[in-house]
Amino acid sequence: MKINHVAIAVENVEDAAKAYQDALDIKSVEFETVESEGVKVAILHLENANIELMEPTNDSSPIKKFLEKRGSGLHHIALETPDIEGEVSRMEGCGIQFLGKIRDGSAGTKVTFIHPKSLKGVLTELCSNG
Amino acid sequence: MKINHVAIAVENVEDAAKAYQDALDIKSVEFETVESEGVKVAILHLENANIELMEPTNDSSPIKKFLEKRGSGLHHIALETPDIEGEVSRMEGCGIQFLGKIRDGSAGTKVTFIHPKSLKGVLTELCSNG
Repeated sequence: MKINHVAIAVENVEDAAKAYQDALDIKSVEFETVESEGVKVAILHLENANIELMEPTNDSSPIKKFLEKRGSGLHHIALETPDIEGEVSRMEGCGIQFLGKIRDGSAGTKVTFIHPKSLKGVLTELCSNG
Repeated sequence: MKINHVAIAVENVEDAAKAYQDALDIKSVEFETVESEGVKVAILHLENANIELMEPTNDSSPIKKFLEKRGSGLHHIALETPDIEGEVSRMEGCGIQFLGKIRDGSAGTKVTFIHPKSLKGVLTELCSNG
Protein backbone atom coordinates (compact mmCIF):
# COMPACT_ATOMS: atom_id res chain seq x y z
CA MET A 1 0.00 0.00 0.00
CA LYS A 2 1.27 3.46 -0.82
CA ILE A 3 0.19 7.09 -0.62
CA ASN A 4 -1.39 8.08 -3.95
CA HIS A 5 -2.26 11.65 -3.02
CA VAL A 6 -3.00 14.15 -0.28
CA ALA A 7 -6.21 16.11 -0.93
CA ILE A 8 -6.69 19.74 0.10
CA ALA A 9 -9.99 21.65 0.07
CA VAL A 10 -9.65 25.16 -1.40
CA GLU A 11 -11.98 28.02 -2.34
CA ASN A 12 -10.51 28.54 -5.81
CA VAL A 13 -8.55 25.80 -7.50
CA GLU A 14 -6.79 27.98 -10.12
CA ASP A 15 -5.59 30.42 -7.48
CA ALA A 16 -4.49 27.59 -5.16
CA ALA A 17 -2.70 25.73 -7.97
CA LYS A 18 -0.75 28.89 -8.78
CA ALA A 19 0.26 29.30 -5.11
CA TYR A 20 1.36 25.65 -4.81
CA GLN A 21 3.18 25.69 -8.16
CA ASP A 22 5.13 28.80 -7.19
CA ALA A 23 5.91 27.58 -3.67
CA LEU A 24 6.91 24.05 -4.64
CA ASP A 25 8.40 24.89 -8.04
CA ILE A 26 6.05 22.54 -9.91
CA LYS A 27 5.84 23.23 -13.61
CA SER A 28 2.83 21.21 -14.72
CA VAL A 29 -0.68 20.88 -13.32
CA GLU A 30 -3.71 18.96 -14.59
CA PHE A 31 -7.25 20.19 -14.02
CA GLU A 32 -10.22 17.83 -13.93
CA THR A 33 -13.89 18.32 -13.05
CA VAL A 34 -15.63 15.33 -11.42
CA GLU A 35 -19.32 16.31 -11.56
CA SER A 36 -20.46 13.16 -9.73
CA GLU A 37 -18.36 14.19 -6.72
CA GLY A 38 -19.10 17.93 -7.06
CA VAL A 39 -15.44 18.95 -7.33
CA LYS A 40 -12.97 20.59 -9.65
CA VAL A 41 -9.50 19.21 -8.99
CA ALA A 42 -5.96 20.40 -9.70
CA ILE A 43 -3.42 17.57 -9.67
CA LEU A 44 0.18 18.47 -8.84
CA HIS A 45 2.71 15.71 -9.41
CA LEU A 46 5.49 15.36 -6.87
CA GLU A 47 8.22 12.73 -7.22
CA ASN A 48 6.44 9.90 -5.39
CA ALA A 49 2.79 11.01 -5.02
CA ASN A 50 0.39 13.84 -5.90
CA ILE A 51 -1.14 16.82 -4.16
CA GLU A 52 -4.77 17.29 -5.20
CA LEU A 53 -6.46 20.65 -4.67
CA MET A 54 -10.27 20.44 -4.65
CA GLU A 55 -12.82 23.22 -5.19
CA PRO A 56 -16.55 22.54 -4.80
CA THR A 57 -18.57 22.92 -8.02
CA ASN A 58 -21.96 23.23 -6.31
CA ASP A 59 -23.52 24.05 -2.95
CA SER A 60 -24.32 20.43 -2.07
CA SER A 61 -20.69 19.31 -2.49
CA PRO A 62 -19.20 17.88 0.72
CA ILE A 63 -16.17 20.09 0.03
CA LYS A 64 -18.43 23.16 0.24
CA LYS A 65 -19.57 22.06 3.69
CA PHE A 66 -15.99 21.34 4.77
CA LEU A 67 -14.87 24.83 3.70
CA GLU A 68 -17.75 26.47 5.54
CA LYS A 69 -16.93 24.58 8.73
CA ARG A 70 -13.12 24.55 8.73
CA GLY A 71 -11.86 26.73 5.91
CA SER A 72 -9.26 25.73 3.36
CA GLY A 73 -6.94 22.92 4.45
CA LEU A 74 -6.11 19.22 4.52
CA HIS A 75 -9.19 17.15 3.61
CA HIS A 76 -8.19 13.49 3.10
CA ILE A 77 -5.39 11.12 2.17
CA ALA A 78 -5.61 8.49 -0.55
CA LEU A 79 -3.92 5.11 -0.29
CA GLU A 80 -3.34 3.03 -3.41
CA THR A 81 -3.50 -0.73 -3.55
CA PRO A 82 -3.28 -3.15 -6.48
CA ASP A 83 -6.20 -5.16 -5.02
CA ILE A 84 -8.94 -2.86 -3.74
CA GLU A 85 -11.59 -5.60 -3.50
CA GLY A 86 -9.26 -7.80 -1.43
CA GLU A 87 -8.25 -4.91 0.84
CA VAL A 88 -11.86 -3.83 1.47
CA SER A 89 -12.81 -7.39 2.27
CA ARG A 90 -9.86 -7.78 4.68
CA MET A 91 -10.60 -4.42 6.33
CA GLU A 92 -14.30 -5.21 6.77
CA GLY A 93 -13.13 -8.34 8.57
CA CYS A 94 -11.23 -6.03 10.99
CA GLY A 95 -14.38 -3.96 11.62
CA ILE A 96 -13.33 -1.00 9.44
CA GLN A 97 -16.32 1.04 8.25
CA PHE A 98 -16.66 2.44 4.73
CA LEU A 99 -18.51 5.36 3.16
CA GLY A 100 -20.17 3.68 0.18
CA LYS A 101 -19.21 0.77 -2.01
CA ILE A 102 -16.26 0.49 -4.41
CA ARG A 103 -17.07 2.72 -7.40
CA ASP A 104 -15.45 4.02 -10.58
CA GLY A 105 -13.04 6.90 -10.08
CA SER A 106 -11.28 8.91 -12.78
CA ALA A 107 -9.05 7.37 -15.45
CA GLY A 108 -10.12 3.75 -14.95
CA THR A 109 -9.42 3.66 -11.23
CA LYS A 110 -11.75 2.29 -8.55
CA VAL A 111 -12.29 4.09 -5.25
CA THR A 112 -14.00 3.90 -1.89
CA PHE A 113 -13.59 5.83 1.38
CA ILE A 114 -12.82 4.58 4.87
CA HIS A 115 -14.99 6.32 7.50
CA PRO A 116 -12.92 8.79 9.58
CA LYS A 117 -14.07 7.12 12.79
CA SER A 118 -12.20 3.96 11.78
CA LEU A 119 -8.90 5.89 11.42
CA LYS A 120 -8.83 8.42 14.29
CA GLY A 121 -10.62 11.20 12.46
CA VAL A 122 -8.85 10.87 9.09
CA LEU A 123 -11.00 10.47 5.99
CA THR A 124 -9.04 7.98 3.88
CA GLU A 125 -9.64 7.17 0.25
CA LEU A 126 -8.70 3.72 -0.94
CA CYS A 127 -7.98 3.55 -4.67
CA SER A 128 -6.79 1.01 -7.19
CA ASN A 129 -4.23 1.98 -9.81
CA GLY A 130 -6.55 1.14 -12.74
CA MET B 1 10.50 17.22 -4.03
CA LYS B 2 8.54 14.31 -2.59
CA ILE B 3 6.11 13.53 0.20
CA ASN B 4 8.08 12.24 3.20
CA HIS B 5 5.12 11.76 5.53
CA VAL B 6 1.58 12.70 6.44
CA ALA B 7 1.22 13.61 10.13
CA ILE B 8 -1.90 12.90 12.18
CA ALA B 9 -2.64 14.26 15.67
CA VAL B 10 -4.02 11.61 18.04
CA GLU B 11 -4.93 11.34 21.71
CA ASN B 12 -3.03 8.10 22.32
CA VAL B 13 -0.27 7.03 19.99
CA GLU B 14 -0.17 3.35 20.99
CA ASP B 15 -3.90 2.95 20.54
CA ALA B 16 -3.82 4.83 17.21
CA ALA B 17 -0.83 2.83 15.93
CA LYS B 18 -2.71 -0.39 16.67
CA ALA B 19 -5.77 0.87 14.76
CA TYR B 20 -3.69 1.93 11.75
CA GLN B 21 -1.61 -1.24 11.78
CA ASP B 22 -4.72 -3.41 11.81
CA ALA B 23 -6.54 -1.37 9.16
CA LEU B 24 -3.61 -1.01 6.77
CA ASP B 25 -1.97 -4.37 7.53
CA ILE B 26 1.33 -2.80 8.57
CA LYS B 27 3.56 -5.11 10.57
CA SER B 28 6.18 -2.78 11.98
CA VAL B 29 5.97 0.54 13.75
CA GLU B 30 8.66 2.73 15.31
CA PHE B 31 7.99 4.91 18.33
CA GLU B 32 10.02 8.02 19.06
CA THR B 33 9.66 10.81 21.63
CA VAL B 34 10.81 14.27 20.52
CA GLU B 35 10.82 16.26 23.78
CA SER B 36 11.85 19.51 22.04
CA GLU B 37 8.64 19.38 19.96
CA GLY B 38 6.48 18.00 22.79
CA VAL B 39 5.37 14.89 20.88
CA LYS B 40 5.52 11.13 20.97
CA VAL B 41 5.42 9.78 17.42
CA ALA B 42 4.55 6.43 15.85
CA ILE B 43 6.05 6.01 12.37
CA LEU B 44 4.26 3.64 10.00
CA HIS B 45 6.14 2.84 6.80
CA LEU B 46 4.11 2.59 3.62
CA GLU B 47 5.71 1.73 0.28
CA ASN B 48 6.62 5.27 -0.80
CA ALA B 49 6.16 7.45 2.30
CA ASN B 50 5.27 7.31 6.01
CA ILE B 51 2.25 7.99 8.16
CA GLU B 52 3.24 9.64 11.46
CA LEU B 53 0.87 9.58 14.41
CA MET B 54 1.61 12.27 17.01
CA GLU B 55 0.51 12.43 20.65
CA PRO B 56 1.30 15.50 22.79
CA THR B 57 3.67 14.84 25.71
CA ASN B 58 2.79 17.99 27.63
CA ASP B 59 0.08 20.63 27.93
CA SER B 60 2.02 23.31 26.05
CA SER B 61 2.51 21.10 22.98
CA PRO B 62 0.95 22.60 19.83
CA ILE B 63 -0.55 19.15 19.21
CA LYS B 64 -2.42 19.42 22.52
CA LYS B 65 -3.98 22.70 21.35
CA PHE B 66 -4.83 21.21 17.96
CA LEU B 67 -6.60 18.24 19.59
CA GLU B 68 -8.59 20.54 21.89
CA LYS B 69 -9.72 22.68 18.97
CA ARG B 70 -10.30 20.10 16.22
CA GLY B 71 -9.98 16.64 17.68
CA SER B 72 -7.90 13.83 16.23
CA GLY B 73 -7.13 14.16 12.53
CA LEU B 74 -4.79 15.32 9.75
CA HIS B 75 -2.24 17.81 11.11
CA HIS B 76 0.45 18.49 8.47
CA ILE B 77 2.27 17.13 5.46
CA ALA B 78 6.03 16.88 5.15
CA LEU B 79 7.89 17.41 1.88
CA GLU B 80 11.44 16.14 1.47
CA THR B 81 14.11 17.86 -0.55
CA PRO B 82 17.82 17.11 -0.97
CA ASP B 83 18.60 20.85 -0.62
CA ILE B 84 16.56 22.41 2.19
CA GLU B 85 18.68 25.59 2.39
CA GLY B 86 18.31 26.18 -1.36
CA GLU B 87 14.54 25.52 -1.27
CA VAL B 88 13.94 27.84 1.68
CA SER B 89 15.95 30.56 -0.02
CA ARG B 90 14.02 30.13 -3.29
CA MET B 91 10.67 30.06 -1.44
CA GLU B 92 11.49 33.18 0.57
CA GLY B 93 12.13 34.85 -2.78
CA CYS B 94 8.53 33.91 -3.73
CA GLY B 95 7.18 35.48 -0.53
CA ILE B 96 6.57 32.18 1.27
CA GLN B 97 6.50 32.60 5.07
CA PHE B 98 8.14 30.17 7.50
CA LEU B 99 7.59 29.19 11.12
CA GLY B 100 11.12 29.36 12.51
CA LYS B 101 14.50 28.75 10.99
CA ILE B 102 15.94 25.49 9.64
CA ARG B 103 16.71 23.31 12.65
CA ASP B 104 17.84 19.78 13.49
CA GLY B 105 15.15 17.11 13.25
CA SER B 106 15.44 13.46 14.20
CA ALA B 107 18.04 11.09 12.75
CA GLY B 108 20.30 13.75 11.23
CA THR B 109 17.57 15.47 9.22
CA LYS B 110 16.97 19.22 9.05
CA VAL B 111 13.45 20.67 9.20
CA THR B 112 11.45 23.87 9.02
CA PHE B 113 7.74 24.62 8.58
CA ILE B 114 5.97 26.68 5.93
CA HIS B 115 3.25 28.88 7.47
CA PRO B 116 -0.26 27.56 6.64
CA LYS B 117 -1.24 30.96 5.22
CA SER B 118 1.33 30.53 2.46
CA LEU B 119 -0.24 27.22 1.35
CA LYS B 120 -4.02 27.68 1.66
CA GLY B 121 -4.31 26.58 5.26
CA VAL B 122 -1.97 23.59 5.09
CA LEU B 123 0.86 23.42 7.61
CA THR B 124 3.76 22.01 5.58
CA GLU B 125 7.02 20.68 6.96
CA LEU B 126 10.06 20.91 4.74
CA CYS B 127 12.72 18.33 5.58
CA SER B 128 16.07 17.22 4.25
CA ASN B 129 16.89 13.54 3.99
CA GLY B 130 19.87 13.74 6.30
